Amino acid sequence: MTNRILIKDLHQHIGEEVEIAGWVDVRRDHGKLIFIDLRDASGKVQMVALPSNEEAHKIAGNLRPEWVIRVDGIVNARPEKMIKANQLNGELEIEIKEIEILSEAKELPFDKDTELNLDTYLDYLPLTLRTKRSSDIFKVQATILEAYRESLRKQGFTEFQSPALVGGDAEGGSAVFSVDYYYDKKAFLATSPQFYKQIMVGAFERPFTIAKVFRAEKSATTRHISEITQMDFEMGFIKNHLEPMAILEQAVKDSVEAVASNHPNIFKEFNTEKPLLPKHFPILTLLEAQEILEKEFGIKAIGELDMEPEHERQICEWAKKNKDSDFVFITHFPTDKRAFYTYADPTNPKLSLSFDLLFRGLEINSGSQRIHNYDELVEKIKSRGMDPKKFSYYLQIFKYGMPPHGGSSTGLERFTARMLELSNIKEATSFPRDMNRIDNLLSK
Amino acid sequence: MTNRILIKDLHQHIGEEVEIAGWVDVRRDHGKLIFIDLRDASGKVQMVALPSNEEAHKIAGNLRPEWVIRVDGIVNARPEKMIKANQLNGELEIEIKEIEILSEAKELPFDKDTELNLDTYLDYLPLTLRTKRSSDIFKVQATILEAYRESLRKQGFTEFQSPALVGGDAEGGSAVFSVDYYYDKKAFLATSPQFYKQIMVGAFERPFTIAKVFRAEKSATTRHISEITQMDFEMGFIKNHLEPMAILEQAVKDSVEAVASNHPNIFKEFNTEKPLLPKHFPILTLLEAQEILEKEFGIKAIGELDMEPEHERQICEWAKKNKDSDFVFITHFPTDKRAFYTYADPTNPKLSLSFDLLFRGLEINSGSQRIHNYDELVEKIKSRGMDPKKFSYYLQIFKYGMPPHGGSSTGLERFTARMLELSNIKEATSFPRDMNRIDNLLSK
Repeated sequence: MTNRILIKDLHQHIGEEVEIAGWVDVRRDHGKLIFIDLRDASGKVQMVALPSNEEAHKIAGNLRPEWVIRVDGIVNARPEKMIKANQLNGELEIEIKEIEILSEAKELPFDKDTELNLDTYLDYLPLTLRTKRSSDIFKVQATILEAYRESLRKQGFTEFQSPALVGGDAEGGSAVFSVDYYYDKKAFLATSPQFYKQIMVGAFERPFTIAKVFRAEKSATTRHISEITQMDFEMGFIKNHLEPMAILEQAVKDSVEAVASNHPNIFKEFNTEKPLLPKHFPILTLLEAQEILEKEFGIKAIGELDMEPEHERQICEWAKKNKDSDFVFITHFPTDKRAFYTYADPTNPKLSLSFDLLFRGLEINSGSQRIHNYDELVEKIKSRGMDPKKFSYYLQIFKYGMPPHGGSSTGLERFTARMLELSNIKEATSFPRDMNRIDNLLSK
Repeated sequence: MTNRILIKDLHQHIGEEVEIAGWVDVRRDHGKLIFIDLRDASGKVQMVALPSNEEAHKIAGNLRPEWVIRVDGIVNARPEKMIKANQLNGELEIEIKEIEILSEAKELPFDKDTELNLDTYLDYLPLTLRTKRSSDIFKVQATILEAYRESLRKQGFTEFQSPALVGGDAEGGSAVFSVDYYYDKKAFLATSPQFYKQIMVGAFERPFTIAKVFRAEKSATTRHISEITQMDFEMGFIKNHLEPMAILEQAVKDSVEAVASNHPNIFKEFNTEKPLLPKHFPILTLLEAQEILEKEFGIKAIGELDMEPEHERQICEWAKKNKDSDFVFITHFPTDKRAFYTYADPTNPKLSLSFDLLFRGLEINSGSQRIHNYDELVEKIKSRGMDPKKFSYYLQIFKYGMPPHGGSSTGLERFTARMLELSNIKEATSFPRDMNRIDNLLSK
């Protein structure tokens, strides 16, 4: 349809005859006039079928929601008093000349304006993804993803493809899905691109990857999904964890700015505001955060090895109030509680040069400096009760010379969910998988 | 290392003292002078340790390949007769002031300049990915990927995340991997993002995705891998298959141009040339291609339902010679031989509005217009002996109004391999998986 005009561009064609196409959003019969709101991916417009155009009027009278049509019509300016300000195409209306039906639709399972519970929303995703709210969420997600990548490229990073199929559950920790591979062998789904991005430091120094990772955790919270899109980077030749933190901070800021500039009304539409970005994100050690929790909120958390979700929310509240920031870094988690490759703080080896980034109450990123010395890493693997032989492929990078390095990992769905203050991460996941659902409920 | 200079930028610092860091590529002892070639991800430079600097000279004498070091040194211009033209840093040399060893390396398992067989190369990927050849291949791949995405964005497409975990092997056809999901249920790895990109037409009209797909084919050819990166798009409101073909042609051309401009010497280094891009890619129906095969190559292929790999090579040879093109589209494959959702040519329903794109002898892309009518699609599913109930989630998009649409799917690894004329697709895959290997050989 080479002459088709997108609905968002109609205001440039007032007085002209145009071809548009889309889905019937709603039909309203007002006496002899039939009004049709037509929707394409760029927006909506009101059209009117006049009784004088008998053929078009007859077709218009049969249209139902979600029928797909192509329309020839005149773009008429509305009279002054009919103009709807602050609404796309509020100043114009299409007078229908001709309608071609491209596709009919069966009766919808529910009224489109009904507020659906999450399970119904997910059961009907092929239909509900067409709502403005859903398509807005995923347009914002596309913007975040591209801005994040663009920021990393500008900071000297190169993208690579990290595999989803791996040979073993090497890292331990997260629950892992197993796959029936060839010849009765088992393979596994990656829980992280960690080892591969460390390997790629040898090729690019600064690799990044957008990787699918898989967690077989039996969690049915608003924060967990089984298939996650991770935005991971790693960088060689660092002095300490502050260098990847600075890269991350820039990428996060660039992503927020891109959402704000590409989607001007989005924060208002989602009843939130543009996230607060201070000149520098506040940085607290875990102990400092716990001291604030005690002093400001009366919570006895000092000495705990990680932060409770509720405490993450409170420390974010504190940062927003005291540091004008919707983001806060927590560093120096206990070395024993982080992944085996985490680099210990030389001044206090019980704590590690690790960090989490919290955003509006939720951890969206985790990172650290990594151990780069071969013998030290082998010892660490043994001390965790694991077998270095199972890591022989990965350990090659250290055996053959690895610079000091570190990196971080951001969950795209969590980042998106907090950007728009969505209450459930599944709303920020185009096709969420969890213990109960892959497209359809598994119990069905 | 905030003051570190990348090796590619040293020419801007002649006469200055600089900090550089990287891997020892090679050490050469020439009498009392010790020469070290230092490599970072941006390039190489020759350094010299003079006996007059006793400490640095002593350290330099102990360095071995792949040790990681940080160096303070003076950037000296070379005397005229020592200049190596057409070589990065051929006009300069670093006089070492101070060396800090960041990481030692064990003895390498083979000499770095040895030409390795593919299995040894893959066994030692964490080391062999550091070679210039490998890092060049994956830098080119990153360029292709970003140029392809950028071209689609410019053409009105929006990115989304297609899932890797799916509930069934709905499409039939390719061999599928099964996954142990929760509660003894089975899930599967996606063989294509096809259904999901069709669903996303409802949200974006023009969705695209960079998706991992998985094929459990028992093929050990130079063209097959088990985990593939697919660059897929789909578009609504098309007239026919020529529209997605035009989008694809532009994205492919933009990718080729990006490689040529971002990597000026790359085609020469890989003993090939920039792919020939005519004003319009030649388009042949399968029958026309078979007639050419008969006329030009004496091959009796007319009436065959698909093209043999050897015939794909020959038709590409013909297109290069006669159409000045390294690309050629083949269209109108038999409807019965394509996926069930492929749209039949209204003028001859035995043939479909489908296409493959061949590049230098290999199919790198496949696409078509799709069926958009619900009843027709249900009938087609039945006629292939499949159960429409198993497709109920997917079928919602057609039940509730779907425009005419089509799209295509490009294999990133195949595209990269043909761009640089690599003989095996595994060389264009950072971490290739096949029936014999996930990182390590499975028989080990």
